[in-house]
Amino acid sequence: MRLNTYPQKETWSELVKRPVLKREKLTETITEIFDEVSKNGDRALIEFNKKFDNAEVETIKVSQKEVVEAESLVGDALKSAIQQARENIARFHASQVPQTEKIETVKGVVCWRENRAIGKVGIYIPGGTAPLFSTVLMLAVPAQLAGCKEIVLCTPPDKEGKINPAILYAAKLCGVTEIFRTGGAQAIAAMTLGTESIPAVYKIFGPGNQYVVAAKEFAQNYKVAIDMPAGPSEVLIIADGEAVPAFCAADLLSQAEHGSDSQVVFLTTDEKVLEETVRETEKQLAVLPRNEMAAEALRNSHFILMKTLEEALEFSNQYAPEHLILAMENAEQYISGIENAGSVFLGNYSCESAGDYASGTNHTLPTNGFAKNYSGVSLDSFVKKITFQNLSEEGLKNLGKTIEVMAEAEGLSAHRSAVSIRLKATE
Amino acid sequence: MRLNTYPQKETWSELVKRPVLKREKLTETITEIFDEVSKNGDRALIEFNKKFDNAEVETIKVSQKEVVEAESLVGDALKSAIQQARENIARFHASQVPQTEKIETVKGVVCWRENRAIGKVGIYIPGGTAPLFSTVLMLAVPAQLAGCKEIVLCTPPDKEGKINPAILYAAKLCGVTEIFRTGGAQAIAAMTLGTESIPAVYKIFGPGNQYVVAAKEFAQNYKVAIDMPAGPSEVLIIADGEAVPAFCAADLLSQAEHGSDSQVVFLTTDEKVLEETVRETEKQLAVLPRNEMAAEALRNSHFILMKTLEEALEFSNQYAPEHLILAMENAEQYISGIENAGSVFLGNYSCESAGDYASGTNHTLPTNGFAKNYSGVSLDSFVKKITFQNLSEEGLKNLGKTIEVMAEAEGLSAHRSAVSIRLKATE
Repeated sequence: MRLNTYPQKETWSELVKRPVLKREKLTETITEIFDEVSKNGDRALIEFNKKFDNAEVETIKVSQKEVVEAESLVGDALKSAIQQARENIARFHASQVPQTEKIETVKGVVCWRENRAIGKVGIYIPGGTAPLFSTVLMLAVPAQLAGCKEIVLCTPPDKEGKINPAILYAAKLCGVTEIFRTGGAQAIAAMTLGTESIPAVYKIFGPGNQYVVAAKEFAQNYKVAIDMPAGPSEVLIIADGEAVPAFCAADLLSQAEHGSDSQVVFLTTDEKVLEETVRETEKQLAVLPRNEMAAEALRNSHFILMKTLEEALEFSNQYAPEHLILAMENAEQYISGIENAGSVFLGNYSCESAGDYASGTNHTLPTNGFAKNYSGVSLDSFVKKITFQNLSEEGLKNLGKTIEVMAEAEGLSAHRSAVSIRLKATE
Repeated sequence: MRLNTYPQKETWSELVKRPVLKREKLTETITEIFDEVSKNGDRALIEFNKKFDNAEVETIKVSQKEVVEAESLVGDALKSAIQQARENIARFHASQVPQTEKIETVKGVVCWRENRAIGKVGIYIPGGTAPLFSTVLMLAVPAQLAGCKEIVLCTPPDKEGKINPAILYAAKLCGVTEIFRTGGAQAIAAMTLGTESIPAVYKIFGPGNQYVVAAKEFAQNYKVAIDMPAGPSEVLIIADGEAVPAFCAADLLSQAEHGSDSQVVFLTTDEKVLEETVRETEKQLAVLPRNEMAAEALRNSHFILMKTLEEALEFSNQYAPEHLILAMENAEQYISGIENAGSVFLGNYSCESAGDYASGTNHTLPTNGFAKNYSGVSLDSFVKKITFQNLSEEGLKNLGKTIEVMAEAEGLSAHRSAVSIRLKATE
């Protein structure tokens, strides 16, 4: 832990810095994987499963039978938890469907926007010890609400060639259309290029290791869009004298356990809250199972005493955290001062894990300072907004002169003629 | 012109293909320019002005005095045209400001989103023979409406070191905060890295040549966002028997005059309309001043006879045009079938140049098939949407079990504890 008391503003730019990730040059590896998938399709994926996941599978596609079977393998408590989370996420994201409002900018000139789903989207869910079914919900629920026709999910198989039943259950519940057992860069390559069984998609979502991240970047060379740039997860807490140190410590740890590169920042104006939160963090860390990663993340964390809450907010805006917790009595009154953040949690009962799982907001958020220029995933991430315009004869008459003058001044004669020829025809 | 009658669906994937752009490997050049700007700041920009634009300038920043003087150099007709366009663009984009709607997903759990402006944005306006003041309007108006604090504009100077007065006038009218005379990749480098006079921005917008495009891509390595991937401009027209061939031809030419790589596609179900549109296009081309580029673009254009309007729409969705004109009697009834397009123009009086300049919609749109997965520029492009949540004690009690079960199943103990510790405290 790095403790800091009333740091000078000149030092902030150092304090808000994220560690530079030593990312190896993976371009060569990624290019080879894309080439291999392009050439050998499903066969390449089956080979990669052997090589990277130590798994023998016969078919890449998960059968309907397996999906149905998975349902019986998930416990009832987890099933109803997943159902409640799905419902809340659906409710919140459904509120993001805009009303179409037609605007008559000038008499006879009507303009509006309409949402259209991105036809085919791909969701990547990493493997590893924990089955990230919550990320299935966060990506498939808005995809389904948006109306995406094909929602493809790729995730690596375990050593038996199986997919965790909770992932299959969540995928089925949220309208994923096809599931494939393939992971890593080769899964991204498959969704980019298409194989015999996996369709090529227009946009790829989801987290992953450095190979997956590099493959998503590489996919953009093939005109595929991606959700957002990647970086380690992070939380910044601003606490006043009413904050509960034990709660704050628990939130800091729930961020720290994501990985040793997780970013944890605690700002407070109250010396006692600072001391107690540090003590509580150490206490809770000691009893946390598998706490090595959290311990390492905490070594790089910042605990900073600030003069005022306004100053803390200014620091936070400069840091641009993925998650911002306002553990403050009158949290709502500071909302208008928030400029850069992914998702904001207000008061002592809004813990980050509520948003991670079940409150309804999305947990796919901008990290690494990208909250300055990117939004988290929402319904918007799964649609294009198309503009429409309808000019009546009167509309063109009202606007014609303006267009002609501007086109002429930009030296675009044919742009001008497209108006003139119509105006002449109506004389 | 390439004429085609009732092409088989199997051949469509060839017909919708964009020419692969031979883009030279510019990485080395771009890296050098970024290095130079990083090392020498404004001085580097002044040198680049000499080298690339043949212009001697003393200061990069355009003075307030020059901006004020520009106003008197723009004719009254152009001024009022620019004003009307600005007003319409502002009216349409203002309608994109969302109402904040708080959603209670579960009793005691309230979630919502709020827009926050991207603090600093950069607008690039290319040089050349025509002053693209319309692009200034399209980018600065939504930036100002969004509330971006710093709106920086870079554009190359002419040989006398001057900026076209129409650009300066439009920039002032739309709240651009600072204007700099620098162009090309070095302007993008300057807005990415910052110099003594040019602030580093969080997102860069605007068109440009292959160096500018490559520099924008490169800027993303420095955590800067960009508006969208680039490609040549394009139009697809679907015409029925009620279309006016002379109008269609004028629209095709207004697309073709953008450059020799412009894409022009004409689909109709009416043989006579096809023939006459071809004839009209040739006739109008002949009298178009500086028509070499348009002529070249037309050589690669497609004129296709389709069996039905539905089939034409299906082709269009596969092509995903930047601009889609429905030159049809009942255009509105085909709207729901449109899946992929940047901006749509309905009926015989909605010419593309209306949207290019003055109807109110944005003209910065996805090209090159990117209408499948990207939207055009809108107010959204200048904001982040931050999610908020406020859980009361009751809210956490209603949601607690769900979060605990899910966190446990994902193996994230601290996520679970953050809930448990709060629930225990309220017992």
